[in-house]
Amino acid sequence: MKKIEIYDTTLRDGAQGEGVSFSLQDKLAITERLDEIGVDYIEGGYPLSNEKDAEYFRRVQEMDLKRVKVCAFGMTRRKGMQAKDDPGMQALLNSGAPVVTIVGKTHDFHVTDVLRVTLEENLAMIADSVGLVAAQGREVIHDAEHFFDGWKANPEYAAKTIQAAAQAGARMVVLCDTNGGSLPEEIAELTKAAIDALSEYGVPVGIHTHNDGDLAVANALAAIDAGAQQIQGTINGFGERCGNADLISCVANLALKKQGYEVLGGDGLEHLTELSRFVYDTANVNRRNNQAFVGQSAFAHKGGMHVHAVNRAASSYEHISPEAVGNERRVLVSELSGRSNIMALTNKMNIEQDRAVMDKVLANVVELENQGFQFEAAEASFELLVRKTLGTFNPHFRTLKYHVEVEDVVHYQDLELTTEATIKLEVAETIKHEVGEGDGPVDALSAALRKALLGTYPNLDQMKLVDYKVRVVNSEAGTAARTRVQIECSDEQDVWGTIGVSENIIQASWNALVDAVEYKLHKDEVASIKPVDSAVAATNQ
Amino acid sequence: MKKIEIYDTTLRDGAQGEGVSFSLQDKLAITERLDEIGVDYIEGGYPLSNEKDAEYFRRVQEMDLKRVKVCAFGMTRRKGMQAKDDPGMQALLNSGAPVVTIVGKTHDFHVTDVLRVTLEENLAMIADSVGLVAAQGREVIHDAEHFFDGWKANPEYAAKTIQAAAQAGARMVVLCDTNGGSLPEEIAELTKAAIDALSEYGVPVGIHTHNDGDLAVANALAAIDAGAQQIQGTINGFGERCGNADLISCVANLALKKQGYEVLGGDGLEHLTELSRFVYDTANVNRRNNQAFVGQSAFAHKGGMHVHAVNRAASSYEHISPEAVGNERRVLVSELSGRSNIMALTNKMNIEQDRAVMDKVLANVVELENQGFQFEAAEASFELLVRKTLGTFNPHFRTLKYHVEVEDVVHYQDLELTTEATIKLEVAETIKHEVGEGDGPVDALSAALRKALLGTYPNLDQMKLVDYKVRVVNSEAGTAARTRVQIECSDEQDVWGTIGVSENIIQASWNALVDAVEYKLHKDEVASIKPVDSAVAATNQ
Repeated sequence: MKKIEIYDTTLRDGAQGEGVSFSLQDKLAITERLDEIGVDYIEGGYPLSNEKDAEYFRRVQEMDLKRVKVCAFGMTRRKGMQAKDDPGMQALLNSGAPVVTIVGKTHDFHVTDVLRVTLEENLAMIADSVGLVAAQGREVIHDAEHFFDGWKANPEYAAKTIQAAAQAGARMVVLCDTNGGSLPEEIAELTKAAIDALSEYGVPVGIHTHNDGDLAVANALAAIDAGAQQIQGTINGFGERCGNADLISCVANLALKKQGYEVLGGDGLEHLTELSRFVYDTANVNRRNNQAFVGQSAFAHKGGMHVHAVNRAASSYEHISPEAVGNERRVLVSELSGRSNIMALTNKMNIEQDRAVMDKVLANVVELENQGFQFEAAEASFELLVRKTLGTFNPHFRTLKYHVEVEDVVHYQDLELTTEATIKLEVAETIKHEVGEGDGPVDALSAALRKALLGTYPNLDQMKLVDYKVRVVNSEAGTAARTRVQIECSDEQDVWGTIGVSENIIQASWNALVDAVEYKLHKDEVASIKPVDSAVAATNQ
Repeated sequence: MKKIEIYDTTLRDGAQGEGVSFSLQDKLAITERLDEIGVDYIEGGYPLSNEKDAEYFRRVQEMDLKRVKVCAFGMTRRKGMQAKDDPGMQALLNSGAPVVTIVGKTHDFHVTDVLRVTLEENLAMIADSVGLVAAQGREVIHDAEHFFDGWKANPEYAAKTIQAAAQAGARMVVLCDTNGGSLPEEIAELTKAAIDALSEYGVPVGIHTHNDGDLAVANALAAIDAGAQQIQGTINGFGERCGNADLISCVANLALKKQGYEVLGGDGLEHLTELSRFVYDTANVNRRNNQAFVGQSAFAHKGGMHVHAVNRAASSYEHISPEAVGNERRVLVSELSGRSNIMALTNKMNIEQDRAVMDKVLANVVELENQGFQFEAAEASFELLVRKTLGTFNPHFRTLKYHVEVEDVVHYQDLELTTEATIKLEVAETIKHEVGEGDGPVDALSAALRKALLGTYPNLDQMKLVDYKVRVVNSEAGTAARTRVQIECSDEQDVWGTIGVSENIIQASWNALVDAVEYKLHKDEVASIKPVDSAVAATNQ
């Protein structure tokens, strides 16, 4: 089995994609997930370009990463100066990253007409830059920009550039199809040529492809078959223009379809679907339902003939088992499959899975999904829905009224903003009427709600709101469209998600908040008085 | 030049995609477009399956199509009956379609275990079905289902099935990778094997691939290089699970990248982008911005270094000329951008691109992006920012106050929701104080704002809010995090995007609304009194 290194550049090249931008927290969270799944390298950013990337490299050193190596990305030194004096090179070294990836020009035309230096100076820039970093004992990866176009135009010069990098101490040379226009047969042929050119240095090659010709994954695989040892790409194929090679597809094809290759450190494959969705959600980019391997529709069967065949033999219309990549089969518009889904979902809940009840839950789910609900990231709301259907849900408080006001008034040129919420609840047979403030309407509602409930339920003190997401479900109607609010809360033990949908964003937020509080209160009761609670649940059935 | 036939199955296999469905009118409109672009075959539907498809075949005969041949799709006859008595076969003949595509089993396992007939009966079913249609003088295309898996399992039997079709009069045999799991090297090898198996009958082969391994386009191209003469696929890769081969990518690669192939009748290539968008809009499916060749981002440049290089030589980061497929280059504003991005973006604005001013704009963009702004989808806010930096921005109104209230009160068991906004503005030297209602706080603010401004600016009546998006920028802080609101508005001529960022969602929404209105008022003034306005702008500089 030949080991193929997986080099993730979601945080750098992926962030060049239109509509993609990561906060520092996002970058650190993705780093942790990539490490867990067993990726070999993470390109964390471009330390010269902005303060956020520089801070990332400081913070990532404090993380307890298991196996991944973090790389800082930058260009070769500028013309006419020593590498050690170049601010970009200094930023790379100061990042503290154990691996430095240096991109250099390979195509003679780009050297003379875009960069505007002589061919000789470009070779010196590559050698100096790689040499400086290697001399400090750091691992250097050399990205050969425009390698394929460059080789086609001037193979002798392209070979010299990568040989300069190898001779100066690069551990690997990565062949970049920078404008994404190469065909698999060209990639295969020129990858072999590069391997030959580097054979005397004992330096292996990697591959970095883009999807402009809709061939990024095929191109990466063609290079691997031609002898490349590393794939650079991004999760979900994020990236400039049409994106980079999707590492999800590359990894799944190498591990499950092609023979003789080994990828990812541990048992990462079964977490590919989870990882894909985590990266979409973190970037707040809509998922692509028909994405290969991990999309929601990837194993969805619609045609009656297909469903019938899949029931007789799964392989009829499934190229792999969906579980192999952590995905699942879905049969669309089919009551039977729906019920088995609901069964699977309620397995953990310790309730009687009566067929009639399951059908009622399914009918409720279908109706709510038509309204815009999505229970995938709102398991707590789903559990409450099941308990409401079973008749075992006992609310801890009743909302009589909530009211929120936001006002912005001119005050000496500036607008002065106030946000206030009042709520009126029935809690433990008394009426609570409270007011709260906050940075925004939801924050104010949350503050008032706590104030009203903490006396009766002091355990709410541990509950924290950790995430708040809003999406317009049917955006064609503009501001009058339906709004879906997803909230994530945590306490010391758990994290749980709830959902609210309404034409009014405040109402949707309130409903999600109420579910979050109810779930917390119920879960703590179950944990503290488990036998009694089960007995109650049993008699209520 | 070898002619490659393009066989479009958007209307049949494409309609199996999750969320895709076409009305009869949609199908006829797409047929007309496909004919115009020079596609060779259109698979219009499955006449047995529903009345809509049967009606399509009646209506399509009345159309004045230039060159395309319309195909009816169906399966081989059922077991144990004569082809002429089978309702499916009758429906195919009655469709009046000049071409009939018959799908038959190729994989022995599917014959015996899914279809549950003997291997011999399946061969008879293929021969009878193809023979019946061919005897009526219609062109027959035989789709060999599960060809690649079938050949791997039992090559002798797979060969017999396609030979049976060829001998019975099929004009072409199409090799289907039905579950989408094959790799390009397997496709190439087995396509050659099929060509050999059919050589004595003089029947050519075609290719039909699916994208389950993210390789549909590469697989189709591999088959063409191995000798196949037809590609079956769909526009935009619509189709069950991960979709079919995207004909846009197949056609563009064959015409613009590979050597020696001829595709599409006329000057179709330059209409690919238009066709792609027409099909998305007709199916009411969201466009994929990063789609190869025709996506909105396919020639969009974000990184400052890239933009700089594209300005010096377009081929740096563009594999083809965007115009070749009817697409266009776009330059995006982002934190990674440099002065060259700002220059490119302000090119259209008719302002003096003074270097010092550009640097000030860039500094403002960087600062705002650090606060969570993103100008990529908010060109209108960007233009206002530039004008504010230049000192040429003259606001059309001044906000003195806005106030919004949402209240939900129990009323006979149900909560009763009211949403009201009041605003106080200075407009044309008078004070306007107005109140509005709406489905949510933003809708109410928008209503009040219109009420206050319509008297002075009646052209605001044409402005519509078409999209409203919310994103939490730093979600780790929960509800107190910063909120980014993006709004899209339109009038009869244009669509424009604006942005607002604040810890308070209401304030962020208000700011985006104000920008949208200011942009609309400015743009209408420029359109109506262009010379005067330019003169003012010039003196203000």
